[in-house]
Amino acid sequence: MSFSFQIEGAAGAARAGVFSTPHGNVETPAFMPVGTLATVKALDPDDLVQMGASMILGNAYHLHLRPGDEVVREMGGLHQFMRWNGPILTDSGGFQVFSLAQLRTVDEQGVEFQSHLDGSRRFFTPEIVMQIERNLGADVIMQFDHVIPGQSSEFAARDASERSIRWLARCLTELRRLEASQPLEDTPRERFQGDSPRNHQALFPIVQGGIHAHLRRAAADSIRAMYDWPGFGIGGLSVGEEKDAMFEMLEVVDEALPKTHPRYLMGVGFPEDLIEAIRRGVDLFDCVAPTRMGRNGAAFTRDGRLNIKRTEFRTDPKPLDPDCDCSACARFSRAYIRHLFVSDEILGLRLLSLHNVHFLLSLGRAARQAIMNGDLDSWSRDWLARYRTASPLTV
Amino acid sequence: MSFSFQIEGAAGAARAGVFSTPHGNVETPAFMPVGTLATVKALDPDDLVQMGASMILGNAYHLHLRPGDEVVREMGGLHQFMRWNGPILTDSGGFQVFSLAQLRTVDEQGVEFQSHLDGSRRFFTPEIVMQIERNLGADVIMQFDHVIPGQSSEFAARDASERSIRWLARCLTELRRLEASQPLEDTPRERFQGDSPRNHQALFPIVQGGIHAHLRRAAADSIRAMYDWPGFGIGGLSVGEEKDAMFEMLEVVDEALPKTHPRYLMGVGFPEDLIEAIRRGVDLFDCVAPTRMGRNGAAFTRDGRLNIKRTEFRTDPKPLDPDCDCSACARFSRAYIRHLFVSDEILGLRLLSLHNVHFLLSLGRAARQAIMNGDLDSWSRDWLARYRTASPLTV
Repeated sequence: MSFSFQIEGAAGAARAGVFSTPHGNVETPAFMPVGTLATVKALDPDDLVQMGASMILGNAYHLHLRPGDEVVREMGGLHQFMRWNGPILTDSGGFQVFSLAQLRTVDEQGVEFQSHLDGSRRFFTPEIVMQIERNLGADVIMQFDHVIPGQSSEFAARDASERSIRWLARCLTELRRLEASQPLEDTPRERFQGDSPRNHQALFPIVQGGIHAHLRRAAADSIRAMYDWPGFGIGGLSVGEEKDAMFEMLEVVDEALPKTHPRYLMGVGFPEDLIEAIRRGVDLFDCVAPTRMGRNGAAFTRDGRLNIKRTEFRTDPKPLDPDCDCSACARFSRAYIRHLFVSDEILGLRLLSLHNVHFLLSLGRAARQAIMNGDLDSWSRDWLARYRTASPLTV
Repeated sequence: MSFSFQIEGAAGAARAGVFSTPHGNVETPAFMPVGTLATVKALDPDDLVQMGASMILGNAYHLHLRPGDEVVREMGGLHQFMRWNGPILTDSGGFQVFSLAQLRTVDEQGVEFQSHLDGSRRFFTPEIVMQIERNLGADVIMQFDHVIPGQSSEFAARDASERSIRWLARCLTELRRLEASQPLEDTPRERFQGDSPRNHQALFPIVQGGIHAHLRRAAADSIRAMYDWPGFGIGGLSVGEEKDAMFEMLEVVDEALPKTHPRYLMGVGFPEDLIEAIRRGVDLFDCVAPTRMGRNGAAFTRDGRLNIKRTEFRTDPKPLDPDCDCSACARFSRAYIRHLFVSDEILGLRLLSLHNVHFLLSLGRAARQAIMNGDLDSWSRDWLARYRTASPLTV
């Protein structure tokens, strides 16, 4: 078996686990840095190794458009192409088709849309998306799903959820066909005799259902009845709904999904959301916020967020976060990083991105330690209280 | 003595030397990466350490405007501010005042100009520039000089050269005053009792004289008569004149300067120029070309220059330069780096900048080895022949 999940400790719904993949283990809870276009923006793969990242993301929609999933396959797959030797998960492009692309037409077969880059007409079906994710060759691949806005009506949410489940069945069938017909390592670069341990990709279904508890439960039940999945995605949250609604849905899904398998909350995120979701049984997270915010000059700190461009940091000798051990905080002052931002220097983008990603990775590790220590409640209460008490230096 | 220069080998006019500074030794010939605004653009100081950079540059004009040399001093000086623990040289801003700034008025006292950033009125004199370079605290500081276009008339060249020499005397007087009154380490961060080995900065004069051999000789003679300088800058070359004129001037200056001291050819440059200048007795070089070209997608290779954005590299599995051992070439394909550039990803800027700087550092080391081996002639002939024979993959 190429994939497995061991639970080493628990605290209420929260779990400390180890998700094993053909490219190594992921200790959970874990934040997964997002490498949309086969690079975590502004960072080097060596930076990610140094800060202890384990699994990272790529995106099927973006990589299909640039450089093309066929190109990535020809170059030996995503691991080889971007030189990331750890686990990779690819998002299916469902979210991007419904948010970035233009002029969509959805029917039972799939989605016709125009590329956000050049307006070219494209067609995604569950089968085509599996072929793209096969070409990319990630360890974990997400199903193609029908994504809707966070506050959609129950009718729209039910329709999209049920279609996503029908599409899931087609994804599974197509993946089995591909695993039989297109060995994963059968690239110009490396050939295996017959099947290899790497041939199998873990397909994660995505539980949809908007903010409607009974739809979430129904989705989880249908998905579980279909197959023994290696893990579960939780989609359609953090897309505009109230925070309380998201937390309520997580509690519903925690009950509806098997305790024995990893759960991945897609597109989340921010430190406070990570902690609340971990407390509700989520194991894996991803979000573009740490790198996007970093490029805009915003840094996470244990005392809240900080905007490095502010004048008060002009001669501040302190690191971004005095309690952080990332390679930016270990070396540079706020004054220097502010200077880099004010002067539009590229190193500034890298240092803040690095710090923010490191911050979320560390948060996952600290939460795991708290679960193992049996003090998750007090740890998370203290952490959130400090984070929410903005000091005069933060914004 | 804080500064010294030992010559360990020679081949014709070329020398293999060791320039000792309070922050370590520089094996020459050496290319010095340019960190205009206290950062070598797109690179991390750790990248520079890894590729074996020894001395790097900062720029007095730029750092005076942003973040302000007083801020750098308050933060502990340039070494501490940018976390570069090796030797640093600061350019005086002469070149920038005469190229970037607007509405200049030059008289014997100094230059009045408008900042290229905000149009604010500024006044640089030899004394003010020494105060700026004192605040920055580099190991080697360049005199403030009057820079003129490369093909100026003999009258203009003589006038500027003679003014630069009068300004040099004022720089020396001011530096002595500052060394007595403003101890270098006397910052809020670190205090020394009395004088420290770091208190002394090496002031380099700049030999001017345009493309007029007798003016270059006269300048060298006057400068040598003034003081026992720790090294010499050669300015006003590679600024629009013919290549042959530059090489002729280098031969004139080689004869006119003491063989015992390091010579720094300011603003040069490109691989072929480095080799020709090393053969004419130059020890130190700097140029923004490797990082600027890198940000534009151009890479040095041993087979000439290459533009990574070209379609032919779309699925090219080779590194930028198969004979290069930089951390970009050791890991990434041309196909991947092309993808980063086509997708406007920041990592692409870093990888090409890193490769190009590494390329010039390696070139200096290879030339040094050839001098030590006694085969500089054949090495440079072969190197230049290969570099100039552009393959179909290069531009």
